Amino acid sequence: MNKIINDPKNYVREMMEGICLAHPDQVKMLDDDFRVLVRSEPAPDKVGIVTAGGSGHLPLFLGYVGEGMLDGCAVGDVFASPSAEKMTKMIKACDTGKGVLLLFGNYGGDKMNFAMAREEAEFEDIEIAELHGADDVASAALDKKETRRGVAGIVYAYKIAGAAADAGYDLHQVEAVTARALDQIRTMGVALTPCIVPTVGKPTFTIEEGKMEIGMGIHGEAGIDVSDILSADEVADLTFQRINEELKLQKGDHVSIMVNGLGATPLDEQYIVYRRLALTAEEMGLKVILPHIGEYATSMEMSGLSVSVIKLDEELENLLKAPARTPFYTNANM
Amino acid sequence: MNKIINDPKNYVREMMEGICLAHPDQVKMLDDDFRVLVRSEPAPDKVGIVTAGGSGHLPLFLGYVGEGMLDGCAVGDVFASPSAEKMTKMIKACDTGKGVLLLFGNYGGDKMNFAMAREEAEFEDIEIAELHGADDVASAALDKKETRRGVAGIVYAYKIAGAAADAGYDLHQVEAVTARALDQIRTMGVALTPCIVPTVGKPTFTIEEGKMEIGMGIHGEAGIDVSDILSADEVADLTFQRINEELKLQKGDHVSIMVNGLGATPLDEQYIVYRRLALTAEEMGLKVILPHIGEYATSMEMSGLSVSVIKLDEELENLLKAPARTPFYTNANM
Repeated sequence: MNKIINDPKNYVREMMEGICLAHPDQVKMLDDDFRVLVRSEPAPDKVGIVTAGGSGHLPLFLGYVGEGMLDGCAVGDVFASPSAEKMTKMIKACDTGKGVLLLFGNYGGDKMNFAMAREEAEFEDIEIAELHGADDVASAALDKKETRRGVAGIVYAYKIAGAAADAGYDLHQVEAVTARALDQIRTMGVALTPCIVPTVGKPTFTIEEGKMEIGMGIHGEAGIDVSDILSADEVADLTFQRINEELKLQKGDHVSIMVNGLGATPLDEQYIVYRRLALTAEEMGLKVILPHIGEYATSMEMSGLSVSVIKLDEELENLLKAPARTPFYTNANM
Repeated sequence: MNKIINDPKNYVREMMEGICLAHPDQVKMLDDDFRVLVRSEPAPDKVGIVTAGGSGHLPLFLGYVGEGMLDGCAVGDVFASPSAEKMTKMIKACDTGKGVLLLFGNYGGDKMNFAMAREEAEFEDIEIAELHGADDVASAALDKKETRRGVAGIVYAYKIAGAAADAGYDLHQVEAVTARALDQIRTMGVALTPCIVPTVGKPTFTIEEGKMEIGMGIHGEAGIDVSDILSADEVADLTFQRINEELKLQKGDHVSIMVNGLGATPLDEQYIVYRRLALTAEEMGLKVILPHIGEYATSMEMSGLSVSVIKLDEELENLLKAPARTPFYTNANM
């Protein structure tokens, strides 16, 4: 197993300790529990924004806890949901009396556990709203949109929800604007090599050498096609076309584009793909705001990338542009 | 070849176009030449700081062109020096009359070409200073320090030189403080898998499965040992001890620590290694300032990581902490 780790059983705890040792001014464990990351200085008097998810996707999910984005993240084992108990604890810690938005990826385990946690929190009179990232167009057809998986596009939703909460929106306003954002985000990815869950020690799925999985999920879920490896321009065109079938972008529209490396794909390749997307956007007369190129949602050492597009209205654009600072995401807005 | 690219011959040009399309407010090609990246808005009335190097190491080298760091970077093919002609052009463009510091890695091709470029520039009465990053302790013994390779540690030198120039230091002052920084930077790395130069199409060096190359360079240069894959704690201890043999850190010393992913190594692993380094620093009574964890100097899809340490005095620390903003490096100093 080509990994630089200690005992695989300690993988998540040691990763969390490393992050808290590196960024003590920004994040900390809640009550020394490595399953819940919160801001070092809780943000007072605003709607709380929390998430949760399995490990193995850094910077997702916990990397977005910080100023202008999330207040807390419950952290599971690699590719596994954290427990309802940890979620409950987090929700309580992140409520300042203005309620809490649960914003997380559309996965069975996370939904089930958050349902229990929500019940607990509401029993203690914490007002809750709940939204799911379900941006992966390859995971289900449009008429089964609500079953789609959440992938890298949720980062845009974190950013917008966090900025809205900071701007003093109440829970229902935060929920409404974040729902509108989620509705305008689409993602599609390709993968070239698998990854290894540390406690398993070998790939839990395989990709044939020289082949590309089109639309594979970030845990290796089946995609829509297997092909020979496509060129960067072909990947850009394929993903953008599929995304645009639904967003139906028009001349003059404002968008942000994310090219997200899945772990082992060099930045060079991500920028070569972005190049084509930017040229396409230019040809179509779109205005690209704050492109995001880099690793935002990975599958450890998986090779491949995803393309996300969010269609912006004026309010969404302003919220996207607001300053943010987390250990893995900085918008200095200078 | 598991790469998402177009024609390998266009790799560097298309990568550069992607970067300029993504960050037009920060960087641009000089006279539409993709071999020279400069700031979109040249910084007026300060010492120029420039570098150069081969491609395939993003964010190194060109990723540090921007506010608070570099003014220009000449860009070679993958793992190859750019030409003297491009360097000359860059130096001229980055001189505001206060002279230019050439700050680059200690590699033969880069040195030879910069020597020619320097002669040209001096012929035109541009005042020049020159410093080399040579931080890789595994590449030569201490008594042959001047032959060592430059690797990730040069990023600290870029940051400090850039901040000094912004603070109004003259060329000799920038040179002096940057030389002092370089003298206090040490790096050592390990590699687990090789990488592929796009125009070659297969690995130009090999690493046996299950083995780790200790001290391998970022182009696959031989290291000091081959071993079975070590644990994260062992890698942290081995690299730190070797570095500290030379830095001789004492209780109360201020340092910054960089854990740099070489391309395919997940952030989780980098933070697990950082954890051990931070605990060691704590035990020794060191104060860690602004740790850097992530990809700063890669070898495309190589797997592995390097550890760098810089010992800081008060002036170096203040320069390290100054704000900077480039497409790949932000210190918002919030």
